[in-house]
Amino acid sequence: MAEKSLSFPELIRKKRDGEKLQKNDIRHFIQALKHGSIQDSQIGALLMAIRLRSMDPEETLSLTQEMMLSGKVLEWPESWHGVMVDKHSTGGVGDKVSLPLAPALAACGCKVPMISGRGLMHTGGTLDKLESVPGYSVHQTAEQMRKILEEVGCCIIGQTEELVPADKILYAIRDVTATVDSLPLITGSIICKKAAESLRALVLDVKYGSAALYKTLDSARELAKSMVTVGNQLGINTAAVLTTMDYPLGQRVGNSLEVIESLECLKGRGPADLRELVTKIGGYLLWMCQKAKTPESGCEKIGETLGNGSALRKFQAMLEAQGVKHATAQALCAEKVDYFQIFRLAPYQEELHAENEGTVETIQAMALAEVLSELGAGRSKAGQSINLSVGAELLVNVGQRIAKGTPWIRVYYEKPELQDTHRHTLQAALVLSDCPPFTPGSRITEILTS
Amino acid sequence: MAEKSLSFPELIRKKRDGEKLQKNDIRHFIQALKHGSIQDSQIGALLMAIRLRSMDPEETLSLTQEMMLSGKVLEWPESWHGVMVDKHSTGGVGDKVSLPLAPALAACGCKVPMISGRGLMHTGGTLDKLESVPGYSVHQTAEQMRKILEEVGCCIIGQTEELVPADKILYAIRDVTATVDSLPLITGSIICKKAAESLRALVLDVKYGSAALYKTLDSARELAKSMVTVGNQLGINTAAVLTTMDYPLGQRVGNSLEVIESLECLKGRGPADLRELVTKIGGYLLWMCQKAKTPESGCEKIGETLGNGSALRKFQAMLEAQGVKHATAQALCAEKVDYFQIFRLAPYQEELHAENEGTVETIQAMALAEVLSELGAGRSKAGQSINLSVGAELLVNVGQRIAKGTPWIRVYYEKPELQDTHRHTLQAALVLSDCPPFTPGSRITEILTS
Repeated sequence: MAEKSLSFPELIRKKRDGEKLQKNDIRHFIQALKHGSIQDSQIGALLMAIRLRSMDPEETLSLTQEMMLSGKVLEWPESWHGVMVDKHSTGGVGDKVSLPLAPALAACGCKVPMISGRGLMHTGGTLDKLESVPGYSVHQTAEQMRKILEEVGCCIIGQTEELVPADKILYAIRDVTATVDSLPLITGSIICKKAAESLRALVLDVKYGSAALYKTLDSARELAKSMVTVGNQLGINTAAVLTTMDYPLGQRVGNSLEVIESLECLKGRGPADLRELVTKIGGYLLWMCQKAKTPESGCEKIGETLGNGSALRKFQAMLEAQGVKHATAQALCAEKVDYFQIFRLAPYQEELHAENEGTVETIQAMALAEVLSELGAGRSKAGQSINLSVGAELLVNVGQRIAKGTPWIRVYYEKPELQDTHRHTLQAALVLSDCPPFTPGSRITEILTS
Repeated sequence: MAEKSLSFPELIRKKRDGEKLQKNDIRHFIQALKHGSIQDSQIGALLMAIRLRSMDPEETLSLTQEMMLSGKVLEWPESWHGVMVDKHSTGGVGDKVSLPLAPALAACGCKVPMISGRGLMHTGGTLDKLESVPGYSVHQTAEQMRKILEEVGCCIIGQTEELVPADKILYAIRDVTATVDSLPLITGSIICKKAAESLRALVLDVKYGSAALYKTLDSARELAKSMVTVGNQLGINTAAVLTTMDYPLGQRVGNSLEVIESLECLKGRGPADLRELVTKIGGYLLWMCQKAKTPESGCEKIGETLGNGSALRKFQAMLEAQGVKHATAQALCAEKVDYFQIFRLAPYQEELHAENEGTVETIQAMALAEVLSELGAGRSKAGQSINLSVGAELLVNVGQRIAKGTPWIRVYYEKPELQDTHRHTLQAALVLSDCPPFTPGSRITEILTS
């Protein structure tokens, strides 16, 4: 027999007064969400009460679990159980880690059922990036997903209707009610999706800094702890890396440009910070699913897959399995390729020149992302269409000494055109100093494993 | 030019973070409510943020004013401006003060455009009570209302669609989102309705005690202060009386029974506590609209209208103006009358007998109201139909010494029938002691005028 459920006004009152919701209360709420039997005004009021009163770890666990159970939970063949892995990033500028990482893990024998999202505000979305590859389809059924995992080992697909329907409803309401930045609600939303993938191991890349949702290390650590705790309680080996997000990750920002950079990484080239995150996060996952004795040896293994072409072959196979023509995939993955034979090139490119000499202290990622978003590379509202060819390539590195007049950024644009206000914003984003040149430190500040 | 309005998520965020909403923000919200251009989830979230963060007096004033302006604001002939008066009670058990008070004020030359409500939970509603009079119609247009005020001087009618539409929308949502008990929201809801009546003077009867919304004098005083402040700022001479609500007001509870007791009061008879509230609140209103030199002399004038039949004649005229046949109204207002020739008598009556001897310390109004509500006299949900004949008559007074076996209450019921659980609850509501008999003190604890 089910226990008697509280009425929604009484359930809302409990959270309003800072009382603890029971597992049963939370189940009642999530089931009502799913079945449309709670009023929108009640959802809004409860979300605000949660935002202001928060939830303790036990409530957060119940919330995550009930959200997971609101839809289908994926099931895998017994023999895969030990090797199901995934990663999630809280979002940054130029963050393309998933693209090389998924095939690299598959090349090591893991199964990577990556369900990704779209870009919003200043953060890009993995699905948008991959859609710049002609023919790539992010829409795959659970059955197709399983087939791709069987044949290739990794897939990167969009959210299906069957998985965590409660999350979709809650997210749409959080977005308009100023209740996005709630620790338990973020935890629930991120972990329920990963838990519905039935993973063995998960690494969360929690970004902090001026171009991240969380500006300080402390606040990012708090979120990381909450997610790691719930993930482990749900039986997923979960760790988090806290990484800096002040200047863009890699040298390219913008959807098709980021796929190009990912291909470069898969060919053993590309920027050092991207390679560092791919190999270290991948190394951790290999260690956590016992495919490596230490995170360090896992890291080396991932590095090998980038060096010997095995990750690249997995990427090519994934592209083809998700709808890209063989010739296209093969051309993209060739050692030497003119990428713009395949990707649509934005009709205009403009290089900006440094207005002074100095050492590049930072390149403010938030300002760059805002300009690119205005140029059509990102969306300010879910559902907006975007221009996959718009973006920017950084021509200098943080820490490098440059002369006045050095071209430092190339902007790819179409309509709307690059305006003087954009140029000023971009020039202001290049921060120069009189200090000697330096090598930037690691992006990884901390790793949390429980 | 209107100032640029905040987006609703940003407006909600401000209140969520405890910031002050500007008049412009509040207008934007109330207009959107009226026009249906804000999502229900956003209304729920904002109400919860207001409930948890509250509003300062300036925000509360803006809220009340904008709610008032969401609909029609009544206009009166110039010559009436000085004499438009009304009262409002926060609700109690057996509270029938409005019924004798409106005609008594009219008999003193005031205009009383009383817009009342229906009963909910343990509190009765003036409209329900009057509907027990055969023929009485609470539905009157603004035009009819003005005609009745011209010819009689008082009316007691239901909320019209044109007045304060924002209040109706907000109230329905507060009811289901655990945001009813918010000081600024209560203040706005009560005062906007009175302000839309374009009054000169208003007395608020703020009840406190075990059968009131506010259990303590301090919490009731806080609400009274908030309402008196906003009322005066809106140009209405506003005062509040803080009155006790632990045992029922008067001897009769239940819709038609309370009309009978009101008629007794209008005939110069009836319970002392009812007469006290009618004359003192009325006296204050006469003083506040300069129809009396002091509250005390106003009180005497009201007492005279109860003694000389002038208030009773106004009541009869009001009944006839609102649809009651002349013969019915005349019979009710006759010096000697068998009320149950006109009101429908409940088919069953049962008297309960005191189980011990002692002095009546109190008769717990909340327990009595809950039993009567279960018997059909009240509603637990807006819109429920009720039985106007169900009720109870107290046969003893608080402070009186009674012997074991004394009949102390007569219950009028129909379907559902009176059960043993009801009898036990009622017997437990009669609190006896060994103290000597006493005369109960005044119900009025404090009067606030600013």
